[in-house]
This record gives sequence, structure tokens and C-alpha cells, in this order.
Amino acid sequence: MTQPHQPIGIFDSGVGGLTVYQELKKQMPHEHFVYFGDTARVPYGTKSHDIVLRYALQNSLFLMDHNVKLIVVACNTASAVALDYLQQRLKTPVVGVIESGAAAALAVTKNKRVGVIGTEGTIKSGVYEKALKTLNPTLTCFSQATGLFVPVIEEGIFGESILQPLFTHYLANFLHKDIDTLILGCTHYPILKKQLGQFLGSGITLVDSAQTTARQVWELLNKNNLLNTQSQSTPDEIFFSDAPERVQNIARKILNNQGLVIKQGGIN
Amino acid sequence: MTQPHQPIGIFDSGVGGLTVYQELKKQMPHEHFVYFGDTARVPYGTKSHDIVLRYALQNSLFLMDHNVKLIVVACNTASAVALDYLQQRLKTPVVGVIESGAAAALAVTKNKRVGVIGTEGTIKSGVYEKALKTLNPTLTCFSQATGLFVPVIEEGIFGESILQPLFTHYLANFLHKDIDTLILGCTHYPILKKQLGQFLGSGITLVDSAQTTARQVWELLNKNNLLNTQSQSTPDEIFFSDAPERVQNIARKILNNQGLVIKQGGIN
Repeated sequence: MTQPHQPIGIFDSGVGGLTVYQELKKQMPHEHFVYFGDTARVPYGTKSHDIVLRYALQNSLFLMDHNVKLIVVACNTASAVALDYLQQRLKTPVVGVIESGAAAALAVTKNKRVGVIGTEGTIKSGVYEKALKTLNPTLTCFSQATGLFVPVIEEGIFGESILQPLFTHYLANFLHKDIDTLILGCTHYPILKKQLGQFLGSGITLVDSAQTTARQVWELLNKNNLLNTQSQSTPDEIFFSDAPERVQNIARKILNNQGLVIKQGGIN
Repeated sequence: MTQPHQPIGIFDSGVGGLTVYQELKKQMPHEHFVYFGDTARVPYGTKSHDIVLRYALQNSLFLMDHNVKLIVVACNTASAVALDYLQQRLKTPVVGVIESGAAAALAVTKNKRVGVIGTEGTIKSGVYEKALKTLNPTLTCFSQATGLFVPVIEEGIFGESILQPLFTHYLANFLHKDIDTLILGCTHYPILKKQLGQFLGSGITLVDSAQTTARQVWELLNKNNLLNTQSQSTPDEIFFSDAPERVQNIARKILNNQGLVIKQGGIN
């Protein structure tokens, strides 16, 4: 039987999902977490439906080998493509980030015109539009795949001379759509929040799914009496399928050098 | 015993290696080829040494399951990192693209000042510099990782507004180095040849390794009496570990719609 002391599992295609881990940890400091980033096969956003299903299942089974009580799919592409597939197959409850992102946008938008940016896989799936319409059928949704944002972030390029033309290329249309809210539909994107905000101006609020996902996880655990109320002494475990120096550096930057132990594991 | 009728195997991290396949086919039209592009795990250029070794070995064994008489590592990153590793382990001869690229540059340079661009993995390995120095110790070599070129090409972005600042970001230094030759140290890069040429000007000759690699393969087969002199009736086989529409479209574009059958295979 599942017990409160078991860890919460999180997986992502790479390091971006650590932004979700951070928020979960903040809201549930007593919980023990096992994070898996599939850096050996990143990115997922340009890969096919079937490949993302296969990777998502492998990652979930890796987390289940670590005895997790719940799995958070922190990757938007994997959430978009594989959430139902995982929920239909796995005994452990699985939570994605799409509905949470949509709920976050709904709480913010005043004019009911919402934009979404994400990887090719996420945008093609149409899941954000579907989730928004389910929450409120009167919403109008505009979506745009922004394929180069992940490589630009992973390359560590934040200079205006590169970002400005990229933003124009992908986002200029949004400036004419009268949206007041933009969902950052990829766990990497909060890292560009400042630059995106400057480009889009103060009339558009940027939302991501980290906070609402953490809230959803709390509610699910609470409902099933699975919240860990004891202070946790075991340190969290951060696994990457490939952990070169560059990955470790980005991870430590996102986690503010919390001194976590980063391990290699979970690759076939 | 190895026979002339057996196919030549080629692998790459994705679709870029098809530029090498094309040149091999052109120089050896009687040969039968099996190509494998690891699109399910692309890119290799940002991944660690150990992961590239593992993938290169898996890809080579996939080709050996197809009874190849020789393996061409069309991927510069895998050639840079894994060529010795493969040659030490596999009975089938393995040919990389680094020495060929260096030889091509040596044949062109007049002032003996050569630039190299490639992925982070290729440039970090320092193999081009080593290969150039081995060929001619008086050469001076300047290298630069150009991490975003592969994603930009795969995203299909060829507009000046994006490429110009990227070229400036990565290549402006080369314009002050007085190089007269630039090695395109990644099989994707020939796709940007025109735009790179315009940026760098006519004083710098761009070379890639496709032609010299094909020549090296011909010589190796000829020396061992393994050239196929019979006209080949079996169609070549093109495998991708992930073959979504986008991959098929880029592949057909590179191969000028030769109507080849593209198959999915070789992924664990």
C-alpha cells in the first residue's frame, strides 16, 4: 500500500523541469523528491508522438523503481502527448502540467484572449487550447511553436542581438492579437521570462504552470492521506541520463547552488 | 568472409549525414548502402563523451546486423569522440569524416591558416586541430563551436534577420584571423553553405568532408578487393530511429526526392 513517506517522482526531458521541482519543494518542504531529467535524449519537442510515449513510459518506470507515490510529468511535450497513455497503464497516479497552466491563465486573463507558446510537439497536440476551452468555452486561444527557444536557453544565449530577431520571428503576431495573457508552455521558458516580458510589454501577463501544478499535487496527496507530515531527512535525488558539466552547471544555476547531489542514471 | 556485394553502412545523429551518403553514392553508384540516422536521440553535439560512445556503438551494431562490409561515421561529433573506440572493438572497418575534412582543407589553403566550426562536442575534442597538425605541422588552426547552427537548420530558418546576428555572434572573430579556408565540421552545415559564404566573403573557401571521405572509402574497398563492380539492383535502405513527417521532409529535400523508401528502426 502506498505510504506518505514515499517520494514524489518528477521527470522532464532535461533541466527545465527543475523549475517545477523548485515550486513543489517550496509548497511541500516535508516531501522527499526524486527528479529524472532525460538529458541523453533531450529535446522531446521535435520528436514524434510514438517516441515521446516510449520515453515517457521508460522515465515513469525508472521513477517507480525508486518507489514514488506520485509522478509529475514536468515536461510540457510529454504531458501533452503522453499523460493519458501513462494514466491508462500505471498504477501510480500521474499529474501533468497542461491543465495547471491553463488554470493559471484563466485566473489571470481579463479579456479572455490567451496566447500559448511551446515546442512543436506541444503546440501540434492542441492540448492547451482544449484545456482552456474545457475550463471556459468563451476563451479565445492563439498558439505558436517557438522551436529555437530551448536550444537558445541551453546554449546560454541571452543577448539582445540574438533574442530580439528571434522574438520578432516567432512572437510579432501576438502583438496584434490583443491577448492579455501568455502561457509559457515549456518548462524551459520561465528562464527567458524577463526578456520575453520586455519584448511583449506590460499589457501581457506571462504565466507558467509550476505553482498551479504544485497546488494540484498537494490536493491529490491530501485527498488520499498521502502528504508527508514528518520532516524529511533523506536528501532529494536528482538524476540525469547524461550529466556532463554543462548540464550540471545549468541545474545548479536553476537550483541556486543548493548543493544537491546530481547522479547519472536511467538510460538504456 | 567479407564479400563485395555486401552493403556500405553509414550512420549519423540525424539527417545531415545524408549529404555524405549522396557523395558516396555519386562516386560509387554500384554500391548498396544502408543509412541510419539517430533522429530519436539527436543532437549528439551537446551530449557527453560517454553517451556519444554508447550511441555510436549501438548504431554500428545496428548496421552490422544489416551485414555491412564497412561503416562510415558520417557524424562529425561521433567521428571526433568515438572513432578509435569503434575501431578497437569492431571487426568491420570504420571510417570517420575528420581526417577527410582536414585533408580537404589542406588541399585548399594557401596561407596555412584554417578555421573549423562544429558542435560543442567536436570542437571540445580538438580532433580537427590534431588531424591538421598531423598532416602539416606548420598549419595554424582556429576553431569555434557554433551550437545553434544545427537547431536553426532543423527548424528550417534561413532568413537573414535570424542568421545574420547568429553569424556575427559566432563567426565575427574569424574575419580578423586571416584564415583562407573554413572546415564545415558538421554534416548539417553544407546546408548553410550559401549563407555562410555570403557572410564570410570570397576570401574564405568553405570545405566539407563528403568528397574526400567518399574517396577514402573507395580506396579502402579497392585495396581490399571489396568494391562492388556489379550493377546494384537492391534499393538502398534509409533508416531513422524516429521518422516523423518533418524528418522525412528534410531527408527528401537533401536527397532531391529520389523516391527512396524511408524506414523506422534501430531504437531501443
